[in-house]
Amino acid sequence: MGRKVKRLAVLGSTGSIGRQTLDVVRAFPDRLKVVGLAAGRNRRALEQQAGEFGPEWLYLEGAGRPEQDGCKWISMEEMACLPEVDMVVVATAGRAGLLPTLSAIRAGKTVALANKEVLVMAGELVMAEALQWGARLLPLDSEHSAIWQCLRGEKGEAARVLLTASGGPFRNLSAKELSRVTAADALKHPVWEMGPKVTVDSATLMNKGMEAIEAHWLFDLSWDKIQVVLHPQSLVHSLVEFRDGSLKAQMGAPDMRLPIQYALSYPERWANPVLPRMDWSKPLSLTFESPAVDRFPCLRLALEAGKLGGTYPAVLAAADDVAVELFLDGRISFVDIPRLIERTLEGCGGNSGIRRDGRRGPTLEAILEADASSRVRAREIAGAIAV
Amino acid sequence: MGRKVKRLAVLGSTGSIGRQTLDVVRAFPDRLKVVGLAAGRNRRALEQQAGEFGPEWLYLEGAGRPEQDGCKWISMEEMACLPEVDMVVVATAGRAGLLPTLSAIRAGKTVALANKEVLVMAGELVMAEALQWGARLLPLDSEHSAIWQCLRGEKGEAARVLLTASGGPFRNLSAKELSRVTAADALKHPVWEMGPKVTVDSATLMNKGMEAIEAHWLFDLSWDKIQVVLHPQSLVHSLVEFRDGSLKAQMGAPDMRLPIQYALSYPERWANPVLPRMDWSKPLSLTFESPAVDRFPCLRLALEAGKLGGTYPAVLAAADDVAVELFLDGRISFVDIPRLIERTLEGCGGNSGIRRDGRRGPTLEAILEADASSRVRAREIAGAIAV
Repeated sequence: MGRKVKRLAVLGSTGSIGRQTLDVVRAFPDRLKVVGLAAGRNRRALEQQAGEFGPEWLYLEGAGRPEQDGCKWISMEEMACLPEVDMVVVATAGRAGLLPTLSAIRAGKTVALANKEVLVMAGELVMAEALQWGARLLPLDSEHSAIWQCLRGEKGEAARVLLTASGGPFRNLSAKELSRVTAADALKHPVWEMGPKVTVDSATLMNKGMEAIEAHWLFDLSWDKIQVVLHPQSLVHSLVEFRDGSLKAQMGAPDMRLPIQYALSYPERWANPVLPRMDWSKPLSLTFESPAVDRFPCLRLALEAGKLGGTYPAVLAAADDVAVELFLDGRISFVDIPRLIERTLEGCGGNSGIRRDGRRGPTLEAILEADASSRVRAREIAGAIAV
Repeated sequence: MGRKVKRLAVLGSTGSIGRQTLDVVRAFPDRLKVVGLAAGRNRRALEQQAGEFGPEWLYLEGAGRPEQDGCKWISMEEMACLPEVDMVVVATAGRAGLLPTLSAIRAGKTVALANKEVLVMAGELVMAEALQWGARLLPLDSEHSAIWQCLRGEKGEAARVLLTASGGPFRNLSAKELSRVTAADALKHPVWEMGPKVTVDSATLMNKGMEAIEAHWLFDLSWDKIQVVLHPQSLVHSLVEFRDGSLKAQMGAPDMRLPIQYALSYPERWANPVLPRMDWSKPLSLTFESPAVDRFPCLRLALEAGKLGGTYPAVLAAADDVAVELFLDGRISFVDIPRLIERTLEGCGGNSGIRRDGRRGPTLEAILEADASSRVRAREIAGAIAV
């Protein structure tokens, strides 16, 4: 007897989402078991995690594959489709998650997805493959988890989705003040604990634009049904409006372990005393407002790229990756981020989304090519505007 | 082909909830059909409704049963169990709904319940009978509809329910100011369109105390899981916290037709262009705070009566009915309402809730007796404190 233990491969285990995933695993040792861990460069953290969780398989980017007792070293694509894995947690960053996600999907695995770029770059392809192979995609992101929770048990689609955005630390700055913002300023994110790339994306609202693209694919929502609303307190994680005008909002303390645990425990919910709870004994004020379009050009660019489809979103993601890296290195200013992305999109955008074989959406090859060429192009453009 | 039409008996059709129920029926003539209408004293309004909706059965309290083309006059108890009725909408006020609800339940009907006193007076009995006869109780109240919507599709029970209360027009008055409040002041309710009794109950928070008792029975919630929170904007209609700490809130414009339609359309949701929608283009602020216990003694009394069980809640409801009537007539002051209820509870409360036949909860006879005797007692006590 005894309940079934879910066996996890955690890709990107040493990043912020990966570490918080392992926090949840730690709280439920009789329900969750880590069988694979994959990391980028943080060898020491991976070794420490391997020592604690005792996985059978490991991956570390690059050449160094140290001895680790009882572990086998394999690629992330191999790890994602192992028969011993029930669920693949894709907590990698940037384009790194795309191929492992496709590998997991083709093996019919359940994929818990935190890596935004997977659906931004290849939403059409990924969703088509998930349908074809009977794989299930579960969101780890707080916003998409909120939408998923609000849709739980409902028949029919959402009439509208309101993606909440904290608005980041600069939502009240003037254009002049924005132009002087430094990387250090951007990394003081008010509410969530996140990595530097996501923190900057959250200040530009690129984050939210990418989440709109993800929501479009994950929940099969047309663009007119997706709306972004600023909510600085980050307690309402998103809202769904139904056809009768009723809305549901999902709320909770701003702690990523909550949506992570929801995906890992689904369809159950588990009591976890470690997770913070909202305090209703104190007065609480929740505010919402529409984002000023001119203050957040990255949001506009992301929505435009999403609507254009084809490889435009892949170009957007690649250009943003380059732009944020250059900003964090102090090579371009905060307001240069959208400029660089827009010029890259103008130069590299494209393809009609109709493939020669008649299937919709760009091929994986076209996506990867767009990613690579737009990174080159973005760096060229940046050379002209670098400070 | 053609979809199945739900055939409704609307009890209390000329009251606020009854009229709004008919508004919803009017919007969906191919899905809802009124086969029975029952009213208290408003003969003219009932005749007008009968002319518009063409029901087969009518009821009007008291002797007067005018000619109405093609209609048969029957009692509410008879109407509630007609084979031609699929759903009984209990939108009566006070104790009037109790016997028709039991009649509907014993015929296995689906009951859409707006009449608070039914579950306050006889929650244990009503729920036991519903279970026994396979009848379903659907809430029409915005708060219980919110809880029901939030629980939709969830497994396991709620960890906590937060019932929102507008707090009424007097939530910021001093004790001295409260003692001078008039019936006219109380009837200026800030948000919802309701009858005078409910409006006063909303100002004293008796309303919310009764809703806590209803929630206890409807959703099988222990008392420690029910919490009241003030939310003056009345846009969040209640919240449910789950065992993992995640919360769902149901929101919408403060219009009773929305929860009414939800119950009538369930499990579907219907697009109704007549219903107002929340406007997210403008800045929005939602505030929440704990109610000050000393400012709302009726809330405390209701929770105490609910926890005591037996016939205490029936005594509470009867004493409140008398107290609000006397307040609306200018015979006692606003702050006398809880005093009168408390003294009536002290004098009449009771019975252990264990019946001679071993079943839990008071019998219908005991409940009706407690209702009648506590009304007499409340009027006696009121004689001593009348202004």
